[in-house]
Amino acid sequence: MPNPLKKDDAYWMGLALNEAVKARGHTSPNPMVGAVLVKGGKLLAKGYHRRAGLPHAEIEAMRRAKQLKGATLYVTLEPCCHEGKRTPPCTEAILRSGIRRVVVGTLDPNPKVSGKGVKQLSKAGIQVKVGVLEADCREINLFYNHWMTTGRPWVLLKAAASLDGRIALSNGRSRWITGNLAREWVHRLRGEVDAILVGIGTVLADDPRLTARHPKAARQPVRIVLDPHFKISRRAKVLRGPRGTRCWVVVAPDKAASKKAREFSARGVEVLACPLGSDGRLLLRNLLRELGRRSILSLLVEGGAVTWTSFIRQKCAQELLLFQAPKILGADARPLFGELGLTRIPAGGLKPYAAEWLDEDLLTAYRFD
Amino acid sequence: MPNPLKKDDAYWMGLALNEAVKARGHTSPNPMVGAVLVKGGKLLAKGYHRRAGLPHAEIEAMRRAKQLKGATLYVTLEPCCHEGKRTPPCTEAILRSGIRRVVVGTLDPNPKVSGKGVKQLSKAGIQVKVGVLEADCREINLFYNHWMTTGRPWVLLKAAASLDGRIALSNGRSRWITGNLAREWVHRLRGEVDAILVGIGTVLADDPRLTARHPKAARQPVRIVLDPHFKISRRAKVLRGPRGTRCWVVVAPDKAASKKAREFSARGVEVLACPLGSDGRLLLRNLLRELGRRSILSLLVEGGAVTWTSFIRQKCAQELLLFQAPKILGADARPLFGELGLTRIPAGGLKPYAAEWLDEDLLTAYRFD
Repeated sequence: MPNPLKKDDAYWMGLALNEAVKARGHTSPNPMVGAVLVKGGKLLAKGYHRRAGLPHAEIEAMRRAKQLKGATLYVTLEPCCHEGKRTPPCTEAILRSGIRRVVVGTLDPNPKVSGKGVKQLSKAGIQVKVGVLEADCREINLFYNHWMTTGRPWVLLKAAASLDGRIALSNGRSRWITGNLAREWVHRLRGEVDAILVGIGTVLADDPRLTARHPKAARQPVRIVLDPHFKISRRAKVLRGPRGTRCWVVVAPDKAASKKAREFSARGVEVLACPLGSDGRLLLRNLLRELGRRSILSLLVEGGAVTWTSFIRQKCAQELLLFQAPKILGADARPLFGELGLTRIPAGGLKPYAAEWLDEDLLTAYRFD
Repeated sequence: MPNPLKKDDAYWMGLALNEAVKARGHTSPNPMVGAVLVKGGKLLAKGYHRRAGLPHAEIEAMRRAKQLKGATLYVTLEPCCHEGKRTPPCTEAILRSGIRRVVVGTLDPNPKVSGKGVKQLSKAGIQVKVGVLEADCREINLFYNHWMTTGRPWVLLKAAASLDGRIALSNGRSRWITGNLAREWVHRLRGEVDAILVGIGTVLADDPRLTARHPKAARQPVRIVLDPHFKISRRAKVLRGPRGTRCWVVVAPDKAASKKAREFSARGVEVLACPLGSDGRLLLRNLLRELGRRSILSLLVEGGAVTWTSFIRQKCAQELLLFQAPKILGADARPLFGELGLTRIPAGGLKPYAAEWLDEDLLTAYRFD
């Protein structure tokens, strides 16, 4: 992306992007942001936002640079201009700094900022340019942008299946369909999302821990179990995570005030009530709004088939990550998704955007329309 | 592959390979072969085998060159040394030519040649080197090598499915799961194989023509229908192909002498008898041997699920070509393969070797162990 032969705005924004993604998985509920300062065609300093509560990227870069007078600031996301958060507005720091020009990758979808940050700078006489490597600058904050505009987390369905779309044999065996590298990849991904969700069927069948077990895992996500009838065992591994991690069990409203729910609360497991639809299934959109309010920007749905199918039927998924092992399991094995009752071949619905071999397993990634 | 900066044996063999594959789909039952002649580091001539019955690659190249004395011949496959075919042995022509050195990509698996062609040349005082770009020289003649060593065609299962491994909705609708580009790709592939096979279920459901409809299709393959109970309609499109093309219907032995069979023969459709196994299914290995005897080197199995599953269960497939459309059809849609009765997750079985996007459809290719 950055063309080292031509040090134009795109080149410097490319460097800022490289800075931004250094914090992948660490900034939630804030966006990833990178910044570089340039003067006379020379790099003065770089910086990125490391974690919510720590300084913003612009401030990180400015602190590292001397003689800001006349410099250009490249920043992947519009500088903030609002009060009431842990750090003061960046626009004010920029105005005080002597910076002459600000190049912005993309506007901030946060309604408290969106366009206002940029306007404040140009009103004060700073040259402002918006929209350099815009698509890339927007893409790195997919989770944040979606959450900021809809109030709900970005939902990724993650499934591992055979070539013929089977996730377990008829006897329930599913270990291991995919190989080590695919499983490692999942553990790293778990460390980059805010929460992981499974259905009660998966908990009863596999008793998973749902922790991110990878040296590069950024942190431990919240563990969420969909359990409308509150069937989870008090001894389920998912309930006892590493110290300082959280687990939420989602139940039907009539189960939320039970003795079991009080017991769970007492041991630090939150029980969330979620209404049921006429089909007796949890109304996922309600749940997702609640998760959004709790600053869950990204949700990895790890199954099983019933849970994935609910997200698909209720149109509550943004992305499908499909790991396919080079195996054929046959029609007597268990299917990836449940019944959808289609009477026509859908014309669209999913857009491929990435594919990668993990040893002999193929990971393909699709976006739902 | 050919490194233009270093004109070594691998460079010239690379040129010969480029020649060989110009005839892709046209040489069966002969292999693809390419040759180049070099003298004093300069290219004298190139040639390739265009079609069975036409001159071999070495002869094509020699005819184009002057002053062969002292030249080196690069040829992707061992020169033939046997009589009793439409063209005379190439070894003799080489010995008469004044060529001093022969570099061979790979030996010919044909037992009438294998090693003998090379020995004949070195005995006569020609410098011979074998095994330059050997893997590539072997790979281009996968079909031929397999047929020559087993007596059976190379079998490719070709299927188009949704991401969850479904090939049609419960109401039978399957048009179109994959897009135009994937369908074009199949039509070109059809022109590169010796025969296409479908089960009677597909003929009854879809009434396909099974012709190669692509401007680059090399030729029209033989159309084969597996129809043990001889249920095919006399009006099925597959029976009336373009002029000069062939259609074979494979039936159980007790159906092969029926009045319908005689009618079919009279209109130019051959009826082949194939024994049934104890499960009532055709014994595919017997059929494949018969196809091998009929110089079918490659067989594309286009479905449906019952037919693919028979090939998998009877371990009669070498390759799977899977086109996956970015759609989810659900568990009520029809599965890609039938039941396999597995009680353990298979440890291996398929090796991926290629993947390609065709618009939004993904083609992956696997080899069976």
